[in-house]
Amino acid sequence: MTKPLSFQQVILRLQDFWAERGCLIWQPYSEKVGAGTMNPATVLRVLGPEPWNVAYVEPSYRPDDGRYGDNPNRMQMHTQFQVILKPDPGNPQEQYLESLYAIGIEHEKHDIRFVEDNWESPALGAWGLGWEIWLDGLEITQFTYFQQAGGYALDPVSVEITYGLERIVMFLQDVRAVWDIDWDGTRTYGDVLLQPEIEHCRYDFELADVDRLTQMYDLFEAEAKSCLEGGLIIPAHDYILRCSHTFNVLDSRGAIGVTERATYFRRMRDLARQVAVAYAEQRQRMEYPWIEEETANRKSQISSLQSHSPESPSTFLLEIGTEELPAGDLDDVLSQLREIVPSRLDEARLDYGLLRVLGTPRRLAVLVEGLAPRQRPVEELVKGPPTRVAFDSAGDPTKAAEGFARKFGLGVRDLEVREIDGGEYVVAVNREEGLPTVEVLPALLPELIAGLRFGKSMRWNASGVAFSRPVRWLVALLGDAVIPFQYAGLTSGRTSRSSRPQDSVAFEIARADEYLSLLAEREIVVNPEERRAIITEQATKLAASVGGTIPADPKLLDEVTNLVEQPTGLLGHFEEEYLKLPAAVLVAVMKKHQRCFPVVDGDGSLMPHFVVIRNGGEEHIDSVRHGNEEVIRARFADADFFYGEDIKKSLEDFLPRLDTLTFQEQLGSMLDKARRLENLVPQLAEMLGLNAEETQIVQRAAHLCKADLATQMVVEMTSLQGVMGREYALKSGEDEAVAQAIYEHYLPRSAGDASPESKPGLVVGLANRLDSLAGLFAVGLAPTGSSDPYGLRRDALSVVQNLLAHELPFSVQAGLEAAAALMPVQVSQESLAAALEFVVERLRGTLREEGSAYDAVDAVLVARGDDPFRAREAVEQLTAWVARDDWSRILENYARCVRITRDLGERYELEPDRFQQPAEEALYAAYQAARGQVTPHSSVDEFLTAFVPLVDVIDAYFARESGVLVMDEDADLRQNRLAQLQHIAALAEGIVDLSRLEGF
Amino acid sequence: MTKPLSFQQVILRLQDFWAERGCLIWQPYSEKVGAGTMNPATVLRVLGPEPWNVAYVEPSYRPDDGRYGDNPNRMQMHTQFQVILKPDPGNPQEQYLESLYAIGIEHEKHDIRFVEDNWESPALGAWGLGWEIWLDGLEITQFTYFQQAGGYALDPVSVEITYGLERIVMFLQDVRAVWDIDWDGTRTYGDVLLQPEIEHCRYDFELADVDRLTQMYDLFEAEAKSCLEGGLIIPAHDYILRCSHTFNVLDSRGAIGVTERATYFRRMRDLARQVAVAYAEQRQRMEYPWIEEETANRKSQISSLQSHSPESPSTFLLEIGTEELPAGDLDDVLSQLREIVPSRLDEARLDYGLLRVLGTPRRLAVLVEGLAPRQRPVEELVKGPPTRVAFDSAGDPTKAAEGFARKFGLGVRDLEVREIDGGEYVVAVNREEGLPTVEVLPALLPELIAGLRFGKSMRWNASGVAFSRPVRWLVALLGDAVIPFQYAGLTSGRTSRSSRPQDSVAFEIARADEYLSLLAEREIVVNPEERRAIITEQATKLAASVGGTIPADPKLLDEVTNLVEQPTGLLGHFEEEYLKLPAAVLVAVMKKHQRCFPVVDGDGSLMPHFVVIRNGGEEHIDSVRHGNEEVIRARFADADFFYGEDIKKSLEDFLPRLDTLTFQEQLGSMLDKARRLENLVPQLAEMLGLNAEETQIVQRAAHLCKADLATQMVVEMTSLQGVMGREYALKSGEDEAVAQAIYEHYLPRSAGDASPESKPGLVVGLANRLDSLAGLFAVGLAPTGSSDPYGLRRDALSVVQNLLAHELPFSVQAGLEAAAALMPVQVSQESLAAALEFVVERLRGTLREEGSAYDAVDAVLVARGDDPFRAREAVEQLTAWVARDDWSRILENYARCVRITRDLGERYELEPDRFQQPAEEALYAAYQAARGQVTPHSSVDEFLTAFVPLVDVIDAYFARESGVLVMDEDADLRQNRLAQLQHIAALAEGIVDLSRLEGF
Repeated sequence: MTKPLSFQQVILRLQDFWAERGCLIWQPYSEKVGAGTMNPATVLRVLGPEPWNVAYVEPSYRPDDGRYGDNPNRMQMHTQFQVILKPDPGNPQEQYLESLYAIGIEHEKHDIRFVEDNWESPALGAWGLGWEIWLDGLEITQFTYFQQAGGYALDPVSVEITYGLERIVMFLQDVRAVWDIDWDGTRTYGDVLLQPEIEHCRYDFELADVDRLTQMYDLFEAEAKSCLEGGLIIPAHDYILRCSHTFNVLDSRGAIGVTERATYFRRMRDLARQVAVAYAEQRQRMEYPWIEEETANRKSQISSLQSHSPESPSTFLLEIGTEELPAGDLDDVLSQLREIVPSRLDEARLDYGLLRVLGTPRRLAVLVEGLAPRQRPVEELVKGPPTRVAFDSAGDPTKAAEGFARKFGLGVRDLEVREIDGGEYVVAVNREEGLPTVEVLPALLPELIAGLRFGKSMRWNASGVAFSRPVRWLVALLGDAVIPFQYAGLTSGRTSRSSRPQDSVAFEIARADEYLSLLAEREIVVNPEERRAIITEQATKLAASVGGTIPADPKLLDEVTNLVEQPTGLLGHFEEEYLKLPAAVLVAVMKKHQRCFPVVDGDGSLMPHFVVIRNGGEEHIDSVRHGNEEVIRARFADADFFYGEDIKKSLEDFLPRLDTLTFQEQLGSMLDKARRLENLVPQLAEMLGLNAEETQIVQRAAHLCKADLATQMVVEMTSLQGVMGREYALKSGEDEAVAQAIYEHYLPRSAGDASPESKPGLVVGLANRLDSLAGLFAVGLAPTGSSDPYGLRRDALSVVQNLLAHELPFSVQAGLEAAAALMPVQVSQESLAAALEFVVERLRGTLREEGSAYDAVDAVLVARGDDPFRAREAVEQLTAWVARDDWSRILENYARCVRITRDLGERYELEPDRFQQPAEEALYAAYQAARGQVTPHSSVDEFLTAFVPLVDVIDAYFARESGVLVMDEDADLRQNRLAQLQHIAALAEGIVDLSRLEGF
Repeated sequence: MTKPLSFQQVILRLQDFWAERGCLIWQPYSEKVGAGTMNPATVLRVLGPEPWNVAYVEPSYRPDDGRYGDNPNRMQMHTQFQVILKPDPGNPQEQYLESLYAIGIEHEKHDIRFVEDNWESPALGAWGLGWEIWLDGLEITQFTYFQQAGGYALDPVSVEITYGLERIVMFLQDVRAVWDIDWDGTRTYGDVLLQPEIEHCRYDFELADVDRLTQMYDLFEAEAKSCLEGGLIIPAHDYILRCSHTFNVLDSRGAIGVTERATYFRRMRDLARQVAVAYAEQRQRMEYPWIEEETANRKSQISSLQSHSPESPSTFLLEIGTEELPAGDLDDVLSQLREIVPSRLDEARLDYGLLRVLGTPRRLAVLVEGLAPRQRPVEELVKGPPTRVAFDSAGDPTKAAEGFARKFGLGVRDLEVREIDGGEYVVAVNREEGLPTVEVLPALLPELIAGLRFGKSMRWNASGVAFSRPVRWLVALLGDAVIPFQYAGLTSGRTSRSSRPQDSVAFEIARADEYLSLLAEREIVVNPEERRAIITEQATKLAASVGGTIPADPKLLDEVTNLVEQPTGLLGHFEEEYLKLPAAVLVAVMKKHQRCFPVVDGDGSLMPHFVVIRNGGEEHIDSVRHGNEEVIRARFADADFFYGEDIKKSLEDFLPRLDTLTFQEQLGSMLDKARRLENLVPQLAEMLGLNAEETQIVQRAAHLCKADLATQMVVEMTSLQGVMGREYALKSGEDEAVAQAIYEHYLPRSAGDASPESKPGLVVGLANRLDSLAGLFAVGLAPTGSSDPYGLRRDALSVVQNLLAHELPFSVQAGLEAAAALMPVQVSQESLAAALEFVVERLRGTLREEGSAYDAVDAVLVARGDDPFRAREAVEQLTAWVARDDWSRILENYARCVRITRDLGERYELEPDRFQQPAEEALYAAYQAARGQVTPHSSVDEFLTAFVPLVDVIDAYFARESGVLVMDEDADLRQNRLAQLQHIAALAEGIVDLSRLEGF
């Protein structure tokens, strides 16, 4: 084994590599930047139409990541190697992989993955799509196609490759702490950078003078503005960078409150955008001096050869070769294809046999057996005269037939006889023969692809086409014939590519029906179901080999299935000592960072093993395992470090720091929110009838419930919120019930997750969500369409779900009102009503998903939607009543009272002394009996049970023989009778609106 | 010819080169720095004992150098490539030359010179000695041995190599503007950096908000201090860098007044030193982790073999091989050797024949013919008993003789008889035979070398030895024998080195007497006289080849002689168009930047040619010529640019900018000084009797005389002050006499230079110098020992020289008083007296250099030293009187009056009515006659002519027969007589003090 490259050798090699590939080698910037992206060589040069290829080192400062040099991987300064390729050269991933080769990472010996990771910087008005790149599980690079910057849609798109140099070199040198990196053969990374690291941390976290830095910020900003006014772009940018770094230091010092944070961001964003605009305009004024004449108009030509048309049904293959699709997008697009392809073929009158939609992260395939060689023909019939008119008795055509035939340019013999609507007619048949399939598909296929939609799509080349990730090849074959078409600057053909572990080599597909066997030869499992099965089987087997099992985790399984083409499981191990960490932490680490499966023993306890599904075969699997184990170890070491740091303080000690975490700009910090919850919970506890002991627990839990958000562990992995809260509460000596309530207040965290078991957990969670709903609706942040950044749908659903689970009556409206009263902003009645309605809608969905009839649900929710538990009870009761044989009579008689009165503008007064008929008297007596049993809080059962005696009485009342004419000409009499019916109708008020029922 | 390297390729190659030589490759700093030196990788790492080898690129920001991108070579940002080698590897120059090879500069094809250039940063408490490195006349690199930093003497010394990348790449690519540099094969330097350059210039010169930047500075400084208090070194350093850059921008904005400047510098210096101290202490506390055990105790052993000792007188050679000595040091050290070597040989009793001291910038040689093989013997005599006691009458030794002999371990026969002081004694002769020369020299030689002294000397290696520049080899041969000794970590031997153009290859010297022929074979002209003659001859011949001559310039010739070992002249040409520039400018450019000789035609007008003396032979002389021509062209283009910029404004327009140029902190800016001169000149003009017209000219000239200091041309080349003032005054339409006075006020600029011809020039110059003398003495900056930073010696001398030249009486004291009255500081009488005395001393020197007797000069200067012209007149007259035959009688009689009275503590009153003797009456009458003709303003002639009649009278008065006893017992009588003599003695007051004369 040769000596691995030193830190500086890696840099030198990368510079050489990219220089040879046409990149300008640039230098780190003369200001402290958070990332190479902030260097003008990226953030400005990606704007506008001019080409730009550049590579440079960028020491990147992120004060908040500082750990005083105590952490082996986390520093306030790390070193990026930044590459910008503009425009997309067409093979940036391949170039990147070659660059790894250049520094000694032979990718065929490792498991290299492109895992979805998108980038967004609202501050720069910028976003892009791409991946984080994993090397045996270690994230070593960010790879992004910039879509927008400075608020400009980028054209052309730039490819940004950001190498994490320390990570890469640690991997190469197989060292476990960044400080141990060999820099130059003599000095280590720690030799030259540890002391500055410690000093910067002490400065950033402890010593920086908040007042002075705030003043600096203002001065920098003022200079930036004045530079912008003077048209000076680079000086303005320099000052923005200083603003940004100063802000970061202030933030590390814990000096940025919530309102300030938002204000600072807005200020920086405004300036950054102005700089971008000014730069873009400047280049335009300079008439884009770097734009060269297109050296060749390289628009590829579709072969003009007509594809040979098969004569019998053939297999059709469409393969769309892509760069790695995000797991979610792959699922989405496969279901779209399953829907769209059949319908498009049908519309195109193309018959077919078995249709399969398959896919991996790098290819989408539609495989259709028995596709007809031509479209089905179509006939158009024009009805002529009846047969008896068209033919004489001798059976010869009449003039009428001849005239009809002539009209369509037909001979009489061409007419056919058809039976139409029971009569016989002659008809002219206009038959259109179908086109050959080879002529239909070239138009159909690009339209089909263009019709695919993604949550986020991107452009990458001059075609301007948008897709989930770049499309790099197209295969379209009908039998052995290529179906030629163009899409996204590509021309379809018969050339596919093997998997990344097999170096993505091109191979030819002679005939569509060879497709599956060709892929199988290359060990690509193109069928997602098959992949899932293989993964499950392998993981199970590997776990079993150490006497363990893999806990079910369908979401993880789905994701992993979509991350590989060639799944091969491997069993990794880690040091048992880490098992002392909370299991939730370990599992979160494994899932978040490596999408690997935990292994548990018979008791469900974690074992010191994990299963990784690599992309590739068994080759070099030991080094892949080693790499993954190193990553897990490093991540566990991180977690251990965070845990160790966190438990140095009590949970309560973290509370003040919540002041620096924004809940929402107008609604204040998380500390503000926590304080509101503390005020809200006693009211809710009372409403829910908690006892004094429970209320005390609730109170304490509310006080602490958000504190873990400020712990290092939760900052690192948000998914552990609540889990760590419970853990740290226990470590801090809090009551177990308090700890449990802290944990439970986030439950359920997702569909299928459990509700809190304890009442305190229920109450704190309720408070948390009511606060969010009342507050966020008040400031205009109700969810719209697909946008629900604060997860209010889940909040509302959880309110419903938890109240149902606990079977506790509770007025959501009252809860919202109580929460609203604590808000720092004015909460309008409209917004409160909207919030309530939003919860009721979730309840409606829940009840209907439980199988209740929509009309019964509607009938109940109108009346008591704000109390989920009582609403469900009402729906159940109502459902039982509706099932009764006599229901229609009960409903009908109630309806009689309602129908005749519901359009009245007012409620009339009932004056019993004006009754004229015995039926009125009888009804009144019956009504009074019922009224005595029913209040607006009565259940549906109570109401209906009380109502049943009225049924006959109402029936009699309305019978002609009763002598009662409600709509009497005498107005007083009429109004008195209407009043009586109004009273009866009103018996249901607050209980159920039977008018919503079918049959009413 | 292969394609020259691109800008980035040069960087990549240099990184590779130095990485391979053990340098850690570092990155540019994350702050704006003025030079790579400011990067902590230099400024801090050079401190302390730990080894450190590093190389990095450093974009260096110097706002004041910005030219809006209009200048082809001058930018506010340029790119340095910085190398630090600590400790000195022993061959840093050779490594550097190899690095040039690595980027395509084959040094044997060029003329590469190491030209003295020292570096000092009082702000960093740092200095070093070294060179600027010329490539065919182009300065491409600074090469410095750091001696001190942060106030610490550095041990070990670091070698700092700072490549000017743009210069080097322009040379390689043969482009004339930095903007045309090919950066990467596609983009030019201008493509990526011109626009930022322009914007930074606009910001630095026009837009930066002075108030805000001043606030920033204060905030940065406060943070730096607080970091230092907290022990945070790197954060403190970062803030100091920000202070420094902010200061530079403020300075470019013209916002730094004189007092502020000094204050800012002090503030920055204090902080920088504190950082250095803190860093040094930190490393000490860390126990210098990078210090390795000495891998081998490599102290070289002197061969223990005894040198074979010659039997007859032999040639001795000592060659001290050095890195390039500064021209001045070479002269100095050669004269020291010429003095020291003979005296040391004499002291060592070593006889010798012809002794030659020779030298080039790279070798000092002492060549001694006929050096005796042994020291001269010495005898010690011990006197014994007289002969008569030692020998009996029979001539046999007595007991006394035997005892004496025994005492010295001798036999009686060994005693000798010597005559001592007229007596005969036996003596014991203790004869010490001389040691062999080979045994004497090993101790003598290192002492001899160690005794050499330099204006500035440096250390470079662990020996701690100080020398002008590092000593790299030692040759010491007596005949064919090596004289072994150690010095500066080297051991002497017989190996010398050829010249740089011949690649410094080692060669052996078998015998000392081969030395000259071996050097001659290698074309090294080791004799400075011979080099000077060759240079003169070649330059003359080359000039003649275009019909021109070389104006005499002995200083330049001396310097050039000391810059080469192998002089070869070449004739270069430049575009005639540049001849439109003032000749003084062209000459200054040629001398300053390339030490080349201008060529003039028969009228003394410059021709478009110049002569360069390269180091090396005729090989590749065309490329050397081309290089030099390019440099001259670029320099002329610069000058042309500066000239063009300057004449866009009138001379007067530059005045306000003088406010930013410090004269002296307490005495204010150059603008303050100019204003003082304006106020002073009318007084001086009156004192010197100028007419109204002249006075008007003086007034205007004083107003403008300093304005050119703010022009780009003078900022660039200070030696052109006055010259450009005249030029620009004329361009601005000023009166010719005003322009001339501006020019002349600096005359004479050096020994041998002319005095002003015009009275206005004289007066403005006088004002300028009186202001300096009065002011600088007042603030305690009188010259001391060798320190005269403000050139006050020259000022004082010029005052004298000019007044003498113009033959104008003038009271320097009155002038100084007038100047003092205008000072912003209190001027004490003591400082004024000291300033006057300082001028008088220069006058004394001048008069004595002119040949006047010291006593005559002293006699005059005591009386009227403050008026140079009248003093010289007096000396001349006195000299003539002294030559008279009757002078001794005149002097004697005057002396009689003085001697008897001069020790009296008081002046007595003369009362003529108390006279008792006729001689008294007669003396009084004669005195009165003389007194009537003499005043303190009389000339020496007038005084002595008036005194002559008194001679006989005095003689008679003192004759016994006169009856006058001066020291009469009657006190009144005595005092009256003394009073009379006091009056006579006082006749000379203010004119001459004859008591200073010899024979008085």
